[in-house]
Amino acid sequence: MKEVAIVGVGLCKFGVYPERSVRDMGEEAIWNALQHANVQPKDIQIAYCGTVGWDPSLGCSQHGQVMLDLVGITGIPITRVENMCCTGSCAFREAWIAVASGLYDISIAIGVEKMSPQQMGDVKGEKGITTLFQGNDMEGSMGLYPPNLFSMMANRYQERNGISREELRKYMALVSVKNRFNGSLNPNATFQKTVTMEDVLNSRMIADPIQLLDCCPEPDGCAVAILASEEVARKFTTKPVYVAATTQATGIRSEESALEYEEMNQRALKEAYEFSGIGAEDIDVVQVHDCFTISEILWCEALGFAKPGEYGKLLEEGETELGGKLPINTDGGLLAKGHPLGATGIGQIAEIVYQLRGEAGKRQVDGAKVGLCQNEGGLYRGTMGNTSIHILKK
Amino acid sequence: MKEVAIVGVGLCKFGVYPERSVRDMGEEAIWNALQHANVQPKDIQIAYCGTVGWDPSLGCSQHGQVMLDLVGITGIPITRVENMCCTGSCAFREAWIAVASGLYDISIAIGVEKMSPQQMGDVKGEKGITTLFQGNDMEGSMGLYPPNLFSMMANRYQERNGISREELRKYMALVSVKNRFNGSLNPNATFQKTVTMEDVLNSRMIADPIQLLDCCPEPDGCAVAILASEEVARKFTTKPVYVAATTQATGIRSEESALEYEEMNQRALKEAYEFSGIGAEDIDVVQVHDCFTISEILWCEALGFAKPGEYGKLLEEGETELGGKLPINTDGGLLAKGHPLGATGIGQIAEIVYQLRGEAGKRQVDGAKVGLCQNEGGLYRGTMGNTSIHILKK
Repeated sequence: MKEVAIVGVGLCKFGVYPERSVRDMGEEAIWNALQHANVQPKDIQIAYCGTVGWDPSLGCSQHGQVMLDLVGITGIPITRVENMCCTGSCAFREAWIAVASGLYDISIAIGVEKMSPQQMGDVKGEKGITTLFQGNDMEGSMGLYPPNLFSMMANRYQERNGISREELRKYMALVSVKNRFNGSLNPNATFQKTVTMEDVLNSRMIADPIQLLDCCPEPDGCAVAILASEEVARKFTTKPVYVAATTQATGIRSEESALEYEEMNQRALKEAYEFSGIGAEDIDVVQVHDCFTISEILWCEALGFAKPGEYGKLLEEGETELGGKLPINTDGGLLAKGHPLGATGIGQIAEIVYQLRGEAGKRQVDGAKVGLCQNEGGLYRGTMGNTSIHILKK
Repeated sequence: MKEVAIVGVGLCKFGVYPERSVRDMGEEAIWNALQHANVQPKDIQIAYCGTVGWDPSLGCSQHGQVMLDLVGITGIPITRVENMCCTGSCAFREAWIAVASGLYDISIAIGVEKMSPQQMGDVKGEKGITTLFQGNDMEGSMGLYPPNLFSMMANRYQERNGISREELRKYMALVSVKNRFNGSLNPNATFQKTVTMEDVLNSRMIADPIQLLDCCPEPDGCAVAILASEEVARKFTTKPVYVAATTQATGIRSEESALEYEEMNQRALKEAYEFSGIGAEDIDVVQVHDCFTISEILWCEALGFAKPGEYGKLLEEGETELGGKLPINTDGGLLAKGHPLGATGIGQIAEIVYQLRGEAGKRQVDGAKVGLCQNEGGLYRGTMGNTSIHILKK
């Protein structure tokens, strides 16, 4: 298989745009990526478009065709990829395989989502896109929505680790404060204001112990990455960011627990370390799927960035802040940058690319050479539906 | 890139099953494919699931995870792929790239659709899934549905080729009679009854010149293909069917015409011939996307199986019937076998696999060694959204 590098990335600022269409956001993000990559529209040979929902002005699909046509990219294979909240990462991985296989030299991965309820077509008004979760079999019909799913995971975390409610709430609030601070340094974030511990701990209760400021916003947004084989990448950029590994795993149902995620993440991570030859000690900067504050705690421990029950300590010591030993969610994470489903995974990748190219502005992690992203999606009968891990290196 | 073979295929008979779920149809088709391939669930390393719609009992996505779990396939990467009516072919192509790249040894491609309106969730009742087309921008809001789109294409075909209305209707009816006859020999077809020229020409007018028996049914259904690298395929089967080429193209907007499809199909075909080293003269059996009778005529001329305006002659001479020079749509095509969107492309591939393995029963094309499939999908501003061509060989 061929070595593949990311030659450029682009975003449309994550935010609530009732007045903007998917095509409009896509046009902006794709142009930004083409410019960043120094690539012309005619150079792109294959495209993958990750999107979960749809836009009533476009029918249910082929957003990729529509967006790419606007920037003059037509004729090439264009395919939609979907895997719930992990959609963007899966589009990226297909774009990587297409080039790594030797079949294509340059590919584009687009992640896009129009979350504003007023433009979601058949899923209208106050219901919004999260109602799609409602249908999820047993769990959905019994009322399981993401906040109460993660509240159960938080409660189990507390019990397993023998910590007090106050400690749990403190650790969760520390994640919110850290990521909102990082978001305040990111012009592409939905929320660019800092919050205090008091703000978080006094915010409205959503699903105990999850409060309002423990939840990510679900804005509109688009994120794009352009990939090329190593030899072709060098024609376009002096700052290629190599895809050292990109792995994907689904859950294995467990009789013991209805809330499994560790094994799946560990399996995807092990495969990524083995494929890349990179180890935990080499990683300089990380983005994880912090859809809720507890998620960052759970994933970081599953991925071995802290021992079980000890991520809270790292937070207290500031080790995962900017300037800390291992900065996590430097772009604000889903908690501040936002979680426009299909765009999220490629948004994480874009942040790592900015970090490794030294283009992260006030969020820059000095000397960052290797970054890791983790992106989750979906739920099926007590196993998380999918996880993706990407390791990128200079 | 590695040589890849199909080691087995499986179907759930296409039909209207208001009482069956996606998971139920998937379980049947996946077991059939595993058995046909002589492959165990644990052997499968990556899965792609092609589906356009969703099932309210499953939420909007991750049908792949749900169906595969039922047959004991868990943990592996599972990704949904979508490209409107071409969805199945695109899932197949991703499954091919995954193995051809060398990253995986064995992959599975699933195409599934639950078209019965009563189970389509937010798109309910009499509206059904075709309303999704309605939103398609300008065209959709002006009332463009597939039947009137193809009626315009039929009218343009008549004018371009200087044929009479009677000739056009006759040719279209001949396609219906031929494909319904083929369907009568296919236990997996939705419609298994023959029709006469009179039946077709006296059927209800839908969008002049398209009458009821010029239209395909849109049943529920599932189709599955299991792919393996050449060396691994030989461990499982003595009858591997090689993927000589699988290509994909989208349309290029034309100022001259709002109904372009020729150039896109020709481009995908040329690429398939070049990739495989196979030429038109080598092809023994063909499946094309006959969503309407006129579609078979248009695609077959675009693909060079007849000169412009002359496919009618081939039909009159019986050359594309079973026993003719080049049998087309031997499984009954979309017109008789049916068009469950996501399942259609893999259904076509399954038929070619049966033909090349000598397992097509009463539909068997003697000595078939090479087969071709063409599958279309979507529409955007006057260009067909996507086409896929597969060339399979013994």
